Amino acid sequence: MRVVKFGGTSLSTGEQFERVSQIMQANPERQVVVTSAPGKRFKQDIKVTDLLIQAAKNCDVLPDIVARYQAIANYFNLDQSVIDWIESQLDQLSREMVSRSQHLANFKAQGERFSAYLLTAVLKSQGTDATFVEPATLGLVVSGESDDAQIDPVTYRNLAAFQRPRGIMVVPGFYATTAAGDIATFSRGGSDITGAILAKGFGAERYENFTDVDGVYAADPRVVNQPQPIATMTYRELRELSYGGFGVFHDEAIIPAIEGQIPINLKNTNAPQLPGTMIVPEAGFEARHAITGIVSADHFSAIYLHRYLLNKETGLTLKLLELLYHYHLSYEHMPSGIDDLTLILDDTQLDAATKTALCADIKRVLQPDVLEWIDDYAIIMVVGEGMAAHTSLIQTILQPLAAEHIHVSMINQGASQISLMLGTDQKDAARAVQAIYRTFFIPVNQRLEA
Amino acid sequence: MRVVKFGGTSLSTGEQFERVSQIMQANPERQVVVTSAPGKRFKQDIKVTDLLIQAAKNCDVLPDIVARYQAIANYFNLDQSVIDWIESQLDQLSREMVSRSQHLANFKAQGERFSAYLLTAVLKSQGTDATFVEPATLGLVVSGESDDAQIDPVTYRNLAAFQRPRGIMVVPGFYATTAAGDIATFSRGGSDITGAILAKGFGAERYENFTDVDGVYAADPRVVNQPQPIATMTYRELRELSYGGFGVFHDEAIIPAIEGQIPINLKNTNAPQLPGTMIVPEAGFEARHAITGIVSADHFSAIYLHRYLLNKETGLTLKLLELLYHYHLSYEHMPSGIDDLTLILDDTQLDAATKTALCADIKRVLQPDVLEWIDDYAIIMVVGEGMAAHTSLIQTILQPLAAEHIHVSMINQGASQISLMLGTDQKDAARAVQAIYRTFFIPVNQRLEA
Repeated sequence: MRVVKFGGTSLSTGEQFERVSQIMQANPERQVVVTSAPGKRFKQDIKVTDLLIQAAKNCDVLPDIVARYQAIANYFNLDQSVIDWIESQLDQLSREMVSRSQHLANFKAQGERFSAYLLTAVLKSQGTDATFVEPATLGLVVSGESDDAQIDPVTYRNLAAFQRPRGIMVVPGFYATTAAGDIATFSRGGSDITGAILAKGFGAERYENFTDVDGVYAADPRVVNQPQPIATMTYRELRELSYGGFGVFHDEAIIPAIEGQIPINLKNTNAPQLPGTMIVPEAGFEARHAITGIVSADHFSAIYLHRYLLNKETGLTLKLLELLYHYHLSYEHMPSGIDDLTLILDDTQLDAATKTALCADIKRVLQPDVLEWIDDYAIIMVVGEGMAAHTSLIQTILQPLAAEHIHVSMINQGASQISLMLGTDQKDAARAVQAIYRTFFIPVNQRLEA
Repeated sequence: MRVVKFGGTSLSTGEQFERVSQIMQANPERQVVVTSAPGKRFKQDIKVTDLLIQAAKNCDVLPDIVARYQAIANYFNLDQSVIDWIESQLDQLSREMVSRSQHLANFKAQGERFSAYLLTAVLKSQGTDATFVEPATLGLVVSGESDDAQIDPVTYRNLAAFQRPRGIMVVPGFYATTAAGDIATFSRGGSDITGAILAKGFGAERYENFTDVDGVYAADPRVVNQPQPIATMTYRELRELSYGGFGVFHDEAIIPAIEGQIPINLKNTNAPQLPGTMIVPEAGFEARHAITGIVSADHFSAIYLHRYLLNKETGLTLKLLELLYHYHLSYEHMPSGIDDLTLILDDTQLDAATKTALCADIKRVLQPDVLEWIDDYAIIMVVGEGMAAHTSLIQTILQPLAAEHIHVSMINQGASQISLMLGTDQKDAARAVQAIYRTFFIPVNQRLEA
C-alpha cells in the first residue's frame, strides 16, 4: 500500500479536490491520504492556516475560513451539514478556556482537520469508501513544544496495532496529540511529517508526496532556464540539496522515511502522469551521473578570526561555540587554517544588534589579532552520489568558475564525499550555479524529446 | 644591529664554536648572540639538555656533561678556570633544596648557560670584546609553568631601558626568571624564542637564526629529491608550512618577531655564505610564485559523525568540543556537511584507551547514526601568498593528483586564501606531495646553476 500526502495548493479549490480525488481513486494501493490546509489560489491569497492564526488572535476572519471550505463543498454539491460541522467546531474552539499557546495550536490544527473531513465527504459523494480518522485515534503521540512537536516512539507500536478501515483512510496532517491529550503541531509544513510517520508505521511500499511542482530539478528554475528534472536520488542527496532551500519536502519528514527505508515519490497533483522524483535508500542505488544537482543559498555571513597558535589552544573553539550558544545562534560551517578560523552563520538568525554584541564578545573572550565580519556570503552545494567515483571531479567543477573569473573564497569537502561546498560572493552565486550546470547537464535545446 | 641565534648542532664541538665565532666576528652588526645547549655530534650522541634532565633525576652523568664543555675548552686552549666554574655550578645545583619541578628547570637551563659562558670565553680568547649576560640581568621576566614559560610584557620595557655593553653580548637562550626570581624554561627548543624576544626588544634590523640546514625548502628533502630552497617567504607562510613539522623554527618564536616586524633570516652555520631563507612581514611582500611550498603530515585520525539534522542543533558541536576538552584533546580541523561532521585529530595525542573512551562518550552524548574512526589520515598543505591571485589554482593543484589516481578525501580552503588543505590516505601522502611539486617547481636537472 501507499501513503499519499497532498500539499496546500493541491487542496486549495474544488477543482484541486477533484484532482486529488481522481488520483486517490486511480490506484487501489493508495489507501491512506494525508491532507494539508487549503493553500493559496492566487499570489495575493491568504492560506487557511494563516487565517486560523489570525482567528486565534480574535481577528474577525472566521467567515473567510468557512467561505474557503464552503466554495469546495459547493463545487461538489455536498450536504450543508459538512459546513455546519466546520462552523460548529470553530465556534466551540473560540469559547474554550485554555492557555494562549494551546489556543493557537488548537486553531492551527483545524485547517488540515477540515480538509480531511471535507475530502472524506467528497470521496464518499463519489461512491468511494472513505473514513475520516483523527491522529489521536491512530495513536499518534507527540511531545515537546506545542508548535514544534516531536513524535513519541510509542506511535509506531500504536500504528502497528491499528486496524485500518476498509477503503481510503483520510488523516489530517500537521498535528497530533500529547500524552496529556492536548493538540500540538509539528513545525510549519509538517503534513509531510505526518505522511512519513504513517508510511513508516504502516510499512508502506511507497510514500507519495504531491505538490504543485513536477519534482526536484537539478538546479533552481529561477536560476537556470528549464533545468533537468531529477528522476531518482538518494535520501542524503535530498538532504544536501535542501541546503539551498528546495522547499519541496520538509526537512524533518525525511527521518521517518529513512528509518522505515520507505521510498518517497515527489509528484505533481496537476500532472500525475509524470514520474516525478523518486527518493530512495543509498543501499543499492547506482549513480548514473557524477552530479545530481547544484544549489546555492546566499543568506550567509562569515566571521574571520586570526590569531597566532590558535590551533594550539584546546579550549578556544569551545569558548567560541559557548558564545554562539549564549546568543542561541547555530553555525553552518567552520573551516580552519593553522592560525585562523572562519565561522559561517545563517544571516536570517542575525540582526544588527546581535552582530555588534557577538563581535564585541568574541574580541573580549578570544582576543583575536584579526576579526573580520564578511557580509554577502553565498554557499554553493554541488551534490551527487556519483562524485566519489570521479577523482578529477573537483577540478571539473572549479574549471568553469575559473573561466568566468568567479572568486571561490571557501572550498570544503568532508568525508561524506557526496557534496562539494563552495563559498562565493552573493553577486556571483547565480552565475556560478549556471556555469557548473552548463558543464554537467545537457542544454534544453539539445535534449532528446521523451 | 642584528640578534643572532645558534642551534644545538652549531654549538656541539670546538670546530662548530670556531664557526660561530667567525660568523659573529664577520659582521659588526651582529651585536647580540643567543646560545643553545650543545647538541648531537653524531647520530647516537646525547644532547647536553637530555644529560641535564638525567642529572636532575640523580643519574650519574655530571662527568659526561663536564666532558662536553671540556672538549670545547680544550679546542681553544681556554684557561681551566672556565671548566672549574661549570663544575662548581653543577655541584651547587645538586645540593639545592627546591621543589622537584624547580630542580628540573634549574638543571635544564644550564646547557644554554654554560654554552654562553664558554662562547664568551672563546670570543675573548680571540681578542673580541664579549660579555656574558644572564636573562635576569636583561630583565627577561616570565610567568606560567616552569617548563613552558610565557614572556611577561614588562620584559620589553626592561629591554628598552637596558644599556648593552660594548662588543658582543652573549645571552643564554631557553630560560628566564619569574617575578619571584625562579628559573623557568620555555618549551623545548625555546632558544629561538629568546632570540626573537631580544630582536624585538632591541629593535634589531634582522634576526639571524643559524642551524645546520640551508633554510626552508619548497618540500621536505626526505620526500622530494633536492627540493628548491625558498629565498623569501612571509611569516604566515612559515606558519602554514610548519604544519608539516618543518622543525627549523620554533612555533612560539614567530610571535615576538611579528610583533616587532623583525625579518628572520634562517641560515646554515656550516654554509654562512648562502643567503638562507628570509621570513618577512606580509606588508610589502610581492609573491613571485603561486606556490611557496608543499608539506605533508601523516599523523592524523579522523572521526566521521553522521546524524540527520545535525546542523539544526545549536549545542551539538559544543557538546563534542566539551568532550574533547574533558580528554585534554585539541582538534585540527572540523569540516562539516549538512548532516555530518568530520573531526580531524592529531594522532600523537591519542592512545588506544583514549580512542575507545572518546568513541563511547561521543556515542552516548551525541547519539550519531554513524560514527566511523578513520586511521591513517594524512594532511597535505599547499601554501603560497600568491595563491589568491590565481583563480584556477586549485584545479592546477588537483590535476596531478587526479592523474596519479590519488583519492582526496577532504579539501579545505578558508578565508585566509594562502593555503589549500587536502586530506589523503597516509600511503598516498608522499606521492601527492611529489606530484604537486613536479607541477609547480622546476626539476633539479633543469635548473640554471647560480
